[in-house]
Amino acid sequence: MKIVCTKSNLLKSVNIVSKAVSSKTTLPILECFLIEAEDGVIKMTANDLELAIETIVEGEIEEEGVVAIDARIFSEIVRRLPDNDIHISTTENHQMNITCEKAKFDLMGKSGEDFSALPHIEKQNYISMSQYALREIIKQTIFSIADNDNNAVMTGELFEVKDNQFKVVSLDGFRISIRKIELKESYDDISMIVPGKTLNDLTKILSGEMEEEVRIYFTGNHLLFEFGNTKVVSRIIEGEYFKIDQMLSNDYQTKIHVNKKELLNCIERSTLLVKEGDKKPIIMNVTDENMEMKIRSSIGSMNEDIMIKKEGRDIAIAFNQKYLIEAIRVIDDEEIDIYLMNAKAPCIIKDEKESYIYLVLPVNFNPDL
Amino acid sequence: MKIVCTKSNLLKSVNIVSKAVSSKTTLPILECFLIEAEDGVIKMTANDLELAIETIVEGEIEEEGVVAIDARIFSEIVRRLPDNDIHISTTENHQMNITCEKAKFDLMGKSGEDFSALPHIEKQNYISMSQYALREIIKQTIFSIADNDNNAVMTGELFEVKDNQFKVVSLDGFRISIRKIELKESYDDISMIVPGKTLNDLTKILSGEMEEEVRIYFTGNHLLFEFGNTKVVSRIIEGEYFKIDQMLSNDYQTKIHVNKKELLNCIERSTLLVKEGDKKPIIMNVTDENMEMKIRSSIGSMNEDIMIKKEGRDIAIAFNQKYLIEAIRVIDDEEIDIYLMNAKAPCIIKDEKESYIYLVLPVNFNPDL
Repeated sequence: MKIVCTKSNLLKSVNIVSKAVSSKTTLPILECFLIEAEDGVIKMTANDLELAIETIVEGEIEEEGVVAIDARIFSEIVRRLPDNDIHISTTENHQMNITCEKAKFDLMGKSGEDFSALPHIEKQNYISMSQYALREIIKQTIFSIADNDNNAVMTGELFEVKDNQFKVVSLDGFRISIRKIELKESYDDISMIVPGKTLNDLTKILSGEMEEEVRIYFTGNHLLFEFGNTKVVSRIIEGEYFKIDQMLSNDYQTKIHVNKKELLNCIERSTLLVKEGDKKPIIMNVTDENMEMKIRSSIGSMNEDIMIKKEGRDIAIAFNQKYLIEAIRVIDDEEIDIYLMNAKAPCIIKDEKESYIYLVLPVNFNPDL
Repeated sequence: MKIVCTKSNLLKSVNIVSKAVSSKTTLPILECFLIEAEDGVIKMTANDLELAIETIVEGEIEEEGVVAIDARIFSEIVRRLPDNDIHISTTENHQMNITCEKAKFDLMGKSGEDFSALPHIEKQNYISMSQYALREIIKQTIFSIADNDNNAVMTGELFEVKDNQFKVVSLDGFRISIRKIELKESYDDISMIVPGKTLNDLTKILSGEMEEEVRIYFTGNHLLFEFGNTKVVSRIIEGEYFKIDQMLSNDYQTKIHVNKKELLNCIERSTLLVKEGDKKPIIMNVTDENMEMKIRSSIGSMNEDIMIKKEGRDIAIAFNQKYLIEAIRVIDDEEIDIYLMNAKAPCIIKDEKESYIYLVLPVNFNPDL
């Protein structure tokens, strides 16, 4: 193999495929990139068997060939080379030579025979949206997946296409996050559970451009995200997702209309008085026009009044700060509506169109505090 | 006590004195700030018994008083408050109330009786320079202090005033760093060993302005750095510093003139082939006009040619990359001179005026590599 590409093109590809390199594995081939120079195209692939990423490297092929190379070392060398053309060649016994200006590196590669190819995906069912939209919808929901494996379904997000709407749901037993976007075209209904790790990695390599498209292809066992020169293939999580519609009620006894930033800052400040391991909730005491926010812990106490608009009954209710903060932080609206039933029932934060719905369970508290 | 100050003024002071708060101590008072509002001045102090910092907080005193307050909690609260006036008051039993806009915090403070006051310094011997100059000279030498306590003297830097020159020296047994600056006025000769931790903390609170002065006062047991509204008092390290003049020779067999950035980039790239714990030096093979830099490790090999100007004999010599990198990185000159004697003797990197001198010991290597 003999190829030439600029440092910036090579580095761009390295940064993308790196996300699918296994960090703890006993199989050395999973720590490698596969570089293929064939049919006029240079492809770089990484595959940790959960997630596979393939991308096309812009460059020139002087001689076709294939090699697998340690991903960490190769990435670090590319990162440190001068900003100029990089020449990569391999010998018959897979020794790789990397030359850039006066710098010359020799590394031992592998044949690439043991490398697991990208799973084949039937390109039938798909939906299309902007890379920006997909990245945002993941960021706005990913925080409420469960971080342990006790229930595999909770470690992923539900992707559902129905009535030309794309819905993403995550939940961890204490809260639910739901986001919806309207799709521009008409697609078949489908629903799948996508691993959280895949989605976290995706947010790092999606471009965030409104004008750039990503297509999501659904098959029985895999999902393919295709955008730019890159393909990301992920396994899906098997199982039935929770029936969340039963958990969401449109009934409420109190509706609060409040400035988002003011509320968020106040709850964030209250966390200063909470030591790790010592759970002290924030208490919201809702009366007409006013919401008193208070906390008392071994460190000290805080109380703060926030102006609100209220419909319905007065109420006192308490929450784990983290759950409220994570939900409120990803809402773009300046003013938000919070719906409450009673001190034991979940609160629901949503907009009128229900493009977002965040449900958070309250915690017990001592009302005499 | 009752004081009012803006968030930005209070935060500035908090950030300065925080450097002298003890992080691991069994004495709770060492984890506190002392806030004193007396004689029209608000002073904030922290003292971990090695290092004490006192600074003046700009603000209004409505009622005089003193309180000691947990530094971590107080800092975090100040950081998170809205950008507005902060009102701080204390009760007789040292409860502190912090109010800013609608936010109200109550914390338990202490009387401040147990707080160790700043050591008293006789303001006699001192030198003066710009905060920028002091910060730079520390940064340009601090990396070669020893990081373990086997030899206390090596964990500090020598500050020496002689013939109106200020000289800073650090060494760790493998290398020596020396920087000198000319002082504008005439001062008494003095020499002291200053703890490395003090100096590291100082670089973070010195302003870096050419126009802003810092005065260093020397006494028997302490050093006082005075700048702006801030005083930093450090203990000194007792003992005799090494006689470094004997280690520096003006003799050489080979002199190399080389582009600093090219050399630095090359050595930095060579570190990619060095695994942690597996020490592989970089070999410099100096001939006329050319220096071949090479390394061979279990990961792979690198070699690179650098154009140089040479006086004297050809030589092959090997170094620990880290020692060369740290010295070369802090030199501002575009071109540097390296003086060599033989493959077993230290190399010296210095400018003509000897405003900087960096000495690095070579390591053994296999010349047949």
